[in-house]
Amino acid sequence: MRIAIDGMGGDNAPSAIVEGCVMALKEFNDVEIVITGPEDLLTSEFSKYDYDKSRVAILNATEVISTNEHPVMALRKKKDSSLNKALKLVKDKECDAVISSGSTGAFLAGCTLVIGRIKGIERPALSPIMPGMKGPFVVVDAGANVDCKPQYLKQFAIMGKVYYENVINVPNPTVALVNIGAEEEKGNELTKETYKLLKNSNLNFVGNIEPRDITDGNVNVVVCDGFVGNTVLKMYEGVASNLLGTIKTALLSSLVTKIGALFIMPVIKTLKNKFDYKEYGGAPFLGVDGICIKAHGSSDARAFKNAIKQSRIFYLNDTLSKLKIELENNTDDEK
Amino acid sequence: MRIAIDGMGGDNAPSAIVEGCVMALKEFNDVEIVITGPEDLLTSEFSKYDYDKSRVAILNATEVISTNEHPVMALRKKKDSSLNKALKLVKDKECDAVISSGSTGAFLAGCTLVIGRIKGIERPALSPIMPGMKGPFVVVDAGANVDCKPQYLKQFAIMGKVYYENVINVPNPTVALVNIGAEEEKGNELTKETYKLLKNSNLNFVGNIEPRDITDGNVNVVVCDGFVGNTVLKMYEGVASNLLGTIKTALLSSLVTKIGALFIMPVIKTLKNKFDYKEYGGAPFLGVDGICIKAHGSSDARAFKNAIKQSRIFYLNDTLSKLKIELENNTDDEK
Repeated sequence: MRIAIDGMGGDNAPSAIVEGCVMALKEFNDVEIVITGPEDLLTSEFSKYDYDKSRVAILNATEVISTNEHPVMALRKKKDSSLNKALKLVKDKECDAVISSGSTGAFLAGCTLVIGRIKGIERPALSPIMPGMKGPFVVVDAGANVDCKPQYLKQFAIMGKVYYENVINVPNPTVALVNIGAEEEKGNELTKETYKLLKNSNLNFVGNIEPRDITDGNVNVVVCDGFVGNTVLKMYEGVASNLLGTIKTALLSSLVTKIGALFIMPVIKTLKNKFDYKEYGGAPFLGVDGICIKAHGSSDARAFKNAIKQSRIFYLNDTLSKLKIELENNTDDEK
Repeated sequence: MRIAIDGMGGDNAPSAIVEGCVMALKEFNDVEIVITGPEDLLTSEFSKYDYDKSRVAILNATEVISTNEHPVMALRKKKDSSLNKALKLVKDKECDAVISSGSTGAFLAGCTLVIGRIKGIERPALSPIMPGMKGPFVVVDAGANVDCKPQYLKQFAIMGKVYYENVINVPNPTVALVNIGAEEEKGNELTKETYKLLKNSNLNFVGNIEPRDITDGNVNVVVCDGFVGNTVLKMYEGVASNLLGTIKTALLSSLVTKIGALFIMPVIKTLKNKFDYKEYGGAPFLGVDGICIKAHGSSDARAFKNAIKQSRIFYLNDTLSKLKIELENNTDDEK
């Protein structure tokens, strides 16, 4: 497969991105890369590594879209941006997937405007896989759509189901609606209406899930509007990072605790593995008619390599076609 | 001061509640308690302790409202419930505050129906104080109102400010709006409109706060609708409890890690203190024309004692009068 990489997105571009690409080229023989950005800069970055040059092409792009810019305006103005050029490669079928760790808003807008949505999908959704205690879970939507209608959330649920099924390889995954109470009648207008739609769908719907229980990982697909989903995601990151930071500071606070730290290395490793966001690398915009993976803005080389890995699983499983079939099957049961 | 206690609310009623009352009676000489519930049961619980009997009255109540019941219906039907009777004590000015660890919905409905709102307040808000890295913060609203208007959120901000100022003793506390982006134009319709109201108020408004940064504790008053606020609260609890649980399990997993655990006792204590929800005991329903403290449903005796402590600070600082004055001052600047 051939993957379009926005070489200039995110905090660590282009160095971490280039290194991640080199890692991916070594791990996956079937991957080719077209990376966009200033040719000189990217050539110089790649020259640091030993890799199969026949599988990498650099497409010159002179402009960069920053996270502070208005997404749609920036996309229209900066025609020669690394993001625009990467998106166009998928639109023109020259690449099978596109990955960017740049502005979420600009990437989402670009996916919709340049590549387009799957027929019948009203809003694409950002769908990260997160580590849970008993297994990973996917949050749909984690921030693409802040004001939602029940019908959007139903589509999020269907897309999340197919994605989880194919990427995590769990058939008929459980689906729950994020709500601030377990009972059907709890919540706001959006969740009450969405509950009815999900209950009457052919999904493996297990009811409401309270935010307290999400990270247990007992439910596979967690559905909510983008405002709530982003809150779930960012609270998870914030609390975990503050807690682990507190532990680290406290462990280094005295000789005694430093000695203790040596004894509990397995504990620290367990924690690190359980709460490692970088393992899944990136989150797809489900609902776009192409494979579009948003890598975290602060991705390091390994996280970026894992985003490439993810796009590869998405591609090899033909998840996009399966998504379209599932959406068609679920349109029928509403009539 | 005299405090009405719902003796039958929450998971550990009445034993933890009675024990918490006895602890409070010992700690605070100026506190008297009227506790509601089945007289025999409460008398028998109190008989386990040595305490100043002249400061405790038991008011017989034969019914209990559970968390599974419809709040308003249960209140109307169960006139002789421990909650109804406790609320009536404040309504009739026989008590200065009411505390319950029972159903949040029934308690909120009861506060509004039996005691009533402060003039001008459209929706009372649940306002817990949470431990942050650099200091505590208050979330308004944490779950009382799931569908909100910008004007409600402005009132939440004003009430949160006065509460934080008086209970944590920080003058002119910082106020921020929970949003999924830092910039003014980010967010959903509710946050965009609310941002404008807060910017033009006389509050110490510092802009949007992303969920990732809430637990840092750099901002004192965190404003949001009740759905988002409850998500913030419950994600905090869920992630912290899962992380600490993982650490505990891993520490007990081998002899080596058990030895390590002995060395790092100070680390464990630091963690325990930093993330101790029970320290603040309960959350007031700000906006009710009385002191109404919701204690956590799973409160143990110490948490319940701290809820009593909190109602006492609220009362001694005359927070309710200050709240009314601040609300009047802030009505003017809208005209």
